[in-house]
Amino acid sequence: MTKIVVSKSGERRAACGHPWVFKTDIVRSEGHVDDGDFVEVCSDRKKLLGVGYYNSRSQITVRLLTWYQEPLEEDFLYRRILAAWEYRRRFADPESCRVVFGEADFLPGLIVDKFSDVLVIQTLALGIDRFKEQIVECLKDIIKPSGIFERNDVPVREREGLDQRKGFLSSPFETRVRMSENGILFDVDVENGQKTGYFLDQKENRAAISPFVKDGKVLDCFCHTGSFALHAAGFGAREVLGIDSSPHAVQFAGENAKLNSLEDRCRFETANAFDKLRSLWDSGEKFDAIILDPPAFAKSRNALEGAVRGYKEINLRAMKCIESGGFLITCSCSQHVSRELFLDILYDAAADARRKVRLIEFRSQAKDHPVLLAAPETDYLKCAILQII
Amino acid sequence: MTKIVVSKSGERRAACGHPWVFKTDIVRSEGHVDDGDFVEVCSDRKKLLGVGYYNSRSQITVRLLTWYQEPLEEDFLYRRILAAWEYRRRFADPESCRVVFGEADFLPGLIVDKFSDVLVIQTLALGIDRFKEQIVECLKDIIKPSGIFERNDVPVREREGLDQRKGFLSSPFETRVRMSENGILFDVDVENGQKTGYFLDQKENRAAISPFVKDGKVLDCFCHTGSFALHAAGFGAREVLGIDSSPHAVQFAGENAKLNSLEDRCRFETANAFDKLRSLWDSGEKFDAIILDPPAFAKSRNALEGAVRGYKEINLRAMKCIESGGFLITCSCSQHVSRELFLDILYDAAADARRKVRLIEFRSQAKDHPVLLAAPETDYLKCAILQII
Repeated sequence: MTKIVVSKSGERRAACGHPWVFKTDIVRSEGHVDDGDFVEVCSDRKKLLGVGYYNSRSQITVRLLTWYQEPLEEDFLYRRILAAWEYRRRFADPESCRVVFGEADFLPGLIVDKFSDVLVIQTLALGIDRFKEQIVECLKDIIKPSGIFERNDVPVREREGLDQRKGFLSSPFETRVRMSENGILFDVDVENGQKTGYFLDQKENRAAISPFVKDGKVLDCFCHTGSFALHAAGFGAREVLGIDSSPHAVQFAGENAKLNSLEDRCRFETANAFDKLRSLWDSGEKFDAIILDPPAFAKSRNALEGAVRGYKEINLRAMKCIESGGFLITCSCSQHVSRELFLDILYDAAADARRKVRLIEFRSQAKDHPVLLAAPETDYLKCAILQII
Repeated sequence: MTKIVVSKSGERRAACGHPWVFKTDIVRSEGHVDDGDFVEVCSDRKKLLGVGYYNSRSQITVRLLTWYQEPLEEDFLYRRILAAWEYRRRFADPESCRVVFGEADFLPGLIVDKFSDVLVIQTLALGIDRFKEQIVECLKDIIKPSGIFERNDVPVREREGLDQRKGFLSSPFETRVRMSENGILFDVDVENGQKTGYFLDQKENRAAISPFVKDGKVLDCFCHTGSFALHAAGFGAREVLGIDSSPHAVQFAGENAKLNSLEDRCRFETANAFDKLRSLWDSGEKFDAIILDPPAFAKSRNALEGAVRGYKEINLRAMKCIESGGFLITCSCSQHVSRELFLDILYDAAADARRKVRLIEFRSQAKDHPVLLAAPETDYLKCAILQII
């Protein structure tokens, strides 16, 4: 196997368990290597740091699969997918969950989501993309899904020199899949929905809103296909309004409401959340609870400053529209926004809104999205439940 | 009411909702004021910032009860205690909970814990201590406890010029009180136990360990009167060892085990956690789950450096004693250790232990200990559930 020699800083990162070797960490390669090959990563003193897959086209040039002397078994794919599945069977809801969460399941670049008996997969790095057929075989053997769909229509693949594509990896099936989450039914569009069709990482946070929405008038901003809104209604909110800028999502949300016979208490409209909150404030309309689950405002570290302004503004506007004693359930899925920074933003918004604000719970992503402590990139979701007094 | 004029920095803190005015913030007082009196806090430009109680002996010289023009009602004590109780009835377990959490319930310096039908109170500031009799009357009226005990035997009172004392604030009663938490029974020594007798802030975290201890061999370090250990056994751990440096706590823990008929699977011993973990590592003994719930290592900002070393060392030692795939449930109740710092410490420990570590859940204090966002002093408990691979 070809050896890739890395700098001190690359060595330090690998030694601490981080699975990525960046292009800038690499000092030289000893021998020929093709993109997608396995390589041994070594320190300048020839100490083996681990084995991973190589891609000269990517800034993340090696993704480690083992550390130090740990052997890379022939059947590592099967073993790791099995371990990931056993973890979900023990700690998550195997009916619908993220089965494989890339780096955090020691399968860098691989995402597998399960919606009812359908699997949706993404192979986001060349090294793992080459194993797509074997992965499908492992998944069929271990999970026995009724169908598998590929959602590799994501720009991030281009950084790896991979094309964008989507389609069936099994016999074709109906791509509108019905699943249940915390007792609420959802139809998931695995072919054309966002990412893999549904955001499973919020499942535990959706369950956690129950005591804060009961009997209340609730607003769900960035409602996507209605996940938080329908949970609120299911938990006994007397009136729920969900808004999203995507007409496709809003239509799906309305259909999901009907599916649960909640359409009398849940309505959805296409709107920009910033504008809607401003106009609600202008009209004096107030809510007992508001949910903010925006897309990542900070997609990169460079975008952080603008993102902080965005988070502060949306939270400030929401706080102003909440009845005294009511609740704000507010999320950030920007990995670059740390927990402390998010709390600071909320503090600033509270000070500007002149509201006394209590933090009731501070939550993270669901247990089927574990965080690899050595890879902060896997730690991204924050969900604060605040009382606004 | 006498006016206390504060500096720009004091004004800024109050304007952001912080309830404390420090001695160093005060520019002058306009008129005579006795310790314990209500005062109006004003900016240099005579803008009213709020009303609070004054104590020249304390570095925290004013504790605010209102902000800006908000009126301080005659019956503010009754109203605030009632609001605090209603919050617990809605979001916590009213059988046993923290009923009043000082600043976060807008009653600075007042702590009220409820164990079954007994209340334990602390009045930690002169301004609130003067109302002790009225507080007792309010509590009797609102909660109707069978007894009330005062646990003002805490050094922090001396910073307010108050003596240390403890005793009954009602007819005397048996001070060994039986309560239930998450279905486990505990006898609480409200007269001689630590603080008010039992740490209620971990209740939700204790419930959260359930899936991680089932069928396992579990070690509970700093076990106090057995709270985490007995939860582990109650959740189906096959074998639990609890250790604590206090013989009094260990004796109580053993008695609590008998109370739940868990003494065959739960044993307790008096030991120093650092030493015990070292000797377990030396002997090669491993556990499926280890719980670390140490006292605050950083009691002040100055003690932070040593505390970081202490947290790292205890976590490192524990990680080494965990079976591959097992769990570390690790806490810090040091307010000065932020969430990010705690994760950094755990990352360092993992790197030194050469273990791959996944963060499964990152939790905080229970909902009956809400955090006042403007007062970081109320935000102190962190509980990380890690998988050690």
